[in-house]
Amino acid sequence: MFLGKVIGSVWSTQKEEGMENLKLLIVQPIDWKENEGGPTVIAADRIGAGMGERVIVSRGTPAKNIFAHKNVPIDAVIVGIVDSYEVQEG
Amino acid sequence: MFLGKVIGSVWSTQKEEGMENLKLLIVQPIDWKENEGGPTVIAADRIGAGMGERVIVSRGTPAKNIFAHKNVPIDAVIVGIVDSYEVQEG
Amino acid sequence: MFLGKVIGSVWSTQKEEGMENLKLLIVQPIDWKENEGGPTVIAADRIGAGMGERVIVSRGTPAKNIFAHKNVPIDAVIVGIVDSYEVQEG
Amino acid sequence: MFLGKVIGSVWSTQKEEGMENLKLLIVQPIDWKENEGGPTVIAADRIGAGMGERVIVSRGTPAKNIFAHKNVPIDAVIVGIVDSYEVQEG
Amino acid sequence: MFLGKVIGSVWSTQKEEGMENLKLLIVQPIDWKENEGGPTVIAADRIGAGMGERVIVSRGTPAKNIFAHKNVPIDAVIVGIVDSYEVQEG
Repeated sequence: MFLGKVIGSVWSTQKEEGMENLKLLIVQPIDWKENEGGPTVIAADRIGAGMGERVIVSRGTPAKNIFAHKNVPIDAVIVGIVDSYEVQEG
Repeated sequence: MFLGKVIGSVWSTQKEEGMENLKLLIVQPIDWKENEGGPTVIAADRIGAGMGERVIVSRGTPAKNIFAHKNVPIDAVIVGIVDSYEVQEG
Repeated sequence: MFLGKVIGSVWSTQKEEGMENLKLLIVQPIDWKENEGGPTVIAADRIGAGMGERVIVSRGTPAKNIFAHKNVPIDAVIVGIVDSYEVQEG
Repeated sequence: MFLGKVIGSVWSTQKEEGMENLKLLIVQPIDWKENEGGPTVIAADRIGAGMGERVIVSRGTPAKNIFAHKNVPIDAVIVGIVDSYEVQEG
Repeated sequence: MFLGKVIGSVWSTQKEEGMENLKLLIVQPIDWKENEGGPTVIAADRIGAGMGERVIVSRGTPAKNIFAHKNVPIDAVIVGIVDSYEVQEG
C-alpha cells in the first residue's frame, strides 16, 4: 500500500460493466514529509474519504477483491483513512 | 487506475489467441494539468473512446476480468470516459 | 521481494472490510549500502518486525495469500526479518 | 500492454519447470517516435516475431494465461506483431 | 521477465509461513551492456544459480505459481540461468 492525499474526484458516464455506482477519487501519493511523490492514482472509495484526507491505497487483485463476488475492473482502492502515523528516520 | 488521453490506434494481424476483434488504443498518461506523464500504454477499448478523449485506464488481472469467461491476454483496459473532474491542490 | 528498513507505523480506524487487527508498518526500501531507494511502502506485519529492522517485503497477490481464506485487501507484506546478507559487487 | 522492438534472443538450459520449449525474446520498449523507453523486457513468443519487428507486449497473470492449463512461470508475452499504428499528438 | 546478475544472498530466521527452506538471492537487474539498471530484487532460487551468474527473473503470480499447491508469499523467482544471448541494436 502507499500513503496518499485525496485531491479530487472524477466522473464518468460511459463506462465498463461493473463500474456503476463507484465513487472514484484522485489520490496524490505523498511521503511522510507531505511531499508529493509520483503520478496521481484514481482509486475507488467505499469508506467515505474526503477531500484533503490522508489515505492508504492498495492496488491490484488484492484491492479488487473487496468486490468479492462481482467482476469490477478496479485496480486501486482506498483501504483506510489515516488517523495518525509515527516515523523515525535516520 | 490512471488518467490518460487517447492519442492513437494500433493494428495487428499476427497475434495471440484471444486477441481477435479487440480495438487497441494508444493512451498517453496525463496529470490534472494535462501534462504528459510516463510512457504510453496500449489498452483495449469496448466503450467507444475516441481520439483526444480523457479516459480512465485500469491494469492487470482486474482489468482483464472484463473478459470473464475468455482467456484474453490483455493487461490494460479503458474502463471509463471522463465527463469531468474536480481537483483541489495545495 | 525487496529489502527495506522499518521506519514507522500507521493507524487507521475508518477502513475497508478485512483490514481489522492488522499491524501496518512503514517500510523504506534500501539498497545493500543502506541508501534509501524509492518511495516508502505500507506493509502488513505478522512476524513482529520492529522499528529500524531490515526486512524482506513481498507484494501483490502472492503476498496477500498469507491470508489464504480471507478477503484481505493487502498488497504488501513483511515476509522475513533479515538476519544477515552477503553481497559481492563488481 | 506496451509497444516494443525485438532486439535479441536469450537461451537458457538450466531452468524452472514449465520453461521448456519457450522462445524467449529481448524486447526494447519504444515510444511512437521510436525512442527507447525504459529497461528491456524478456518476453515469451509463440507468434513468430522476428528481429527488429515492432510488437505488443502484455505482462503479468493476463499474459501468463495464454498457457491456460500449464504452470508456466512467464510474466511477459508478445501478444501481437504491429502492422501499423496511427498517432495524433498535441 | 528481466535479465539480472546474482550479487548476493540473504538469510532470515523470523519469517512468514511458506518461507521455510527457500534460498533467497539478491539480483541486480542489468542491461545487455552489463550496466546496472534499477534497484536490486530478492528472488527465490530452486535451480542452483551461483554468485555472478546471469539469470532470468520472473515476478508476480506467474512466478509464485512454481509453488503450485503451496501458499508461498514469494513475488520473484529465478526461472533460468542464461547460457548466452544475442542482441542487435540500432
